[in-house]
Amino acid sequence: MMNNFDGAQVLITGGLGFIGSNLARRLDGLGAAITIVDSLIPDYGGNLYNIEGIRERLQVNVSDVRDTHSLRHLVQGKDFLFNLAGQTSHLDSMRNPMPDLEINCQAQLSILETCRAYNPKIKIVFASTRQIYGRPHHLPVAETHPLNPVDINGINKMAGEQYHLLYNDVYGIPATVLRLTNTIGPRMRIKDARQTFVGLWVRQLLENKPISVWGGTQRRDFTDVEDAVDAFLLAAGNASTNGQVYNLGGSEVVDLIRVAKLMVEVHGSGAYEIRDFPADRRAIDIGDYYADFSKIRAELGWTPLRTLRETIGATLDYFRKVMPHYV
Amino acid sequence: MMNNFDGAQVLITGGLGFIGSNLARRLDGLGAAITIVDSLIPDYGGNLYNIEGIRERLQVNVSDVRDTHSLRHLVQGKDFLFNLAGQTSHLDSMRNPMPDLEINCQAQLSILETCRAYNPKIKIVFASTRQIYGRPHHLPVAETHPLNPVDINGINKMAGEQYHLLYNDVYGIPATVLRLTNTIGPRMRIKDARQTFVGLWVRQLLENKPISVWGGTQRRDFTDVEDAVDAFLLAAGNASTNGQVYNLGGSEVVDLIRVAKLMVEVHGSGAYEIRDFPADRRAIDIGDYYADFSKIRAELGWTPLRTLRETIGATLDYFRKVMPHYV
Repeated sequence: MMNNFDGAQVLITGGLGFIGSNLARRLDGLGAAITIVDSLIPDYGGNLYNIEGIRERLQVNVSDVRDTHSLRHLVQGKDFLFNLAGQTSHLDSMRNPMPDLEINCQAQLSILETCRAYNPKIKIVFASTRQIYGRPHHLPVAETHPLNPVDINGINKMAGEQYHLLYNDVYGIPATVLRLTNTIGPRMRIKDARQTFVGLWVRQLLENKPISVWGGTQRRDFTDVEDAVDAFLLAAGNASTNGQVYNLGGSEVVDLIRVAKLMVEVHGSGAYEIRDFPADRRAIDIGDYYADFSKIRAELGWTPLRTLRETIGATLDYFRKVMPHYV
Repeated sequence: MMNNFDGAQVLITGGLGFIGSNLARRLDGLGAAITIVDSLIPDYGGNLYNIEGIRERLQVNVSDVRDTHSLRHLVQGKDFLFNLAGQTSHLDSMRNPMPDLEINCQAQLSILETCRAYNPKIKIVFASTRQIYGRPHHLPVAETHPLNPVDINGINKMAGEQYHLLYNDVYGIPATVLRLTNTIGPRMRIKDARQTFVGLWVRQLLENKPISVWGGTQRRDFTDVEDAVDAFLLAAGNASTNGQVYNLGGSEVVDLIRVAKLMVEVHGSGAYEIRDFPADRRAIDIGDYYADFSKIRAELGWTPLRTLRETIGATLDYFRKVMPHYV
């Protein structure tokens, strides 16, 4: 990949979160001048420890993307906006839908309006989610699959990505959408399952508790966070991606029991237990999902490079060392 | 049709608007006890004259659907909610997107949360729009056509209808979505093109000005408001429609020049002129659209009963008499 980022001015919303901070670390290595905006809302993914070691080289602006005034200041003069701020918990979106709407819809529209007014040439890469497909009609799921979100989070993320595509098409603000599947790796939230159930599993395993597997036969794909970072950089660096939507995917498709077994195996000890779905989770579960990511492979040469075993290994290594910063 | 509405408690949001008021008139004739909520925002469709003659039999509550406290009071004890409040102007949604988001997304979610908390058995019929399909991939457009809205209004209406379907599926609040195409008839907004361009054409014709036709070769379908009212009542009265989406359509497919010609012909005088699209309208125009409404025909026996000529005749007759109340 050409280095489009040496000396580039980069803004990362949600930059203290899981993917945002891993992206910041990579961009820092590539010579970018990075500004992070993050709200540090306790139930979300932001964690100052995620930028340990690079913190002094970054501008960290603690504010909320719902704060239009701070955004107006922050987008000016930037070359790239990696727009990763979001509420990610499906269950929280059902229990308390308004904050999800404010962050995943309203703030997104506000960010785009701000870019239109103050920096219409900024290149945006937006982190969307496979959740907007809802329960797949067929597998694997390509970008053309109908959108039938089954929870408030999915509906709002769908609107959020549509705003980005609209501002690309109507106003020429270059924007690309990546639809992420389960992304895992170092720096993910492990305190609970708000970001990904695998986070909670890591915590359970490292605390010598059995991994709680709901159901277990659901088949899923997992993207290593470093592979996801590759995709964000490729999308940002290629103008051909403007106005396009790309699925990310994983190097293998596995059921959840297989993931739990692999975690126990890689860790060298531990156990898992199968549990029935609670009713509120069952109502919004999407069943089997795995992505067809042939579009981004064909157009940008992206493909997941890490095996699930490698990803689990790197993740457990990381959290074994620094667990107290995450629980 | 069985009369499900005699003595029923009915709430109509946007009830002073075009479709809402025609629906109220019909329901009044069927013996319903009707409460109207309408914000009377000047740029929207609400007009007190729309309920002239039945006003003393209705409860008219002037408030905004963004006002959660008034809604909490109003939904209690109701059997039916006809949810028609909305911002309808595509162009206004682009120029000033936040009010559109507040009304078409946020307030809809708030209404549904209020129903969930205070009246989860209320049957809801939600007025959605063909705008959420965007530029059709093929014609006619069935409900399974991908959703690709091309303006902020379309994105927000898409989210609004998805919330309704979600609350039906997850919480069992019975909700049906109707996707309307161009609805026309007495009591539509004619002051400008904010509700439908045909409204502005009626005004131009009756003021002896040439009808301004942008483009003119776009093919569209038109639903007579009385046919639309039929569909709302059928959807409300049939539990089989819960969780379902239905297109409405028109009795014929015509290009816009044909509509203008027909209006001049029915009126007995007048002229039209073809104009180029202004750039801001062109960017969000959807081109040809007409609906496949075979689903609602098969399931509920609904079909458009009025010809376009009849609809234009009834519309012009109405506005000739009462024009000063609408301009």
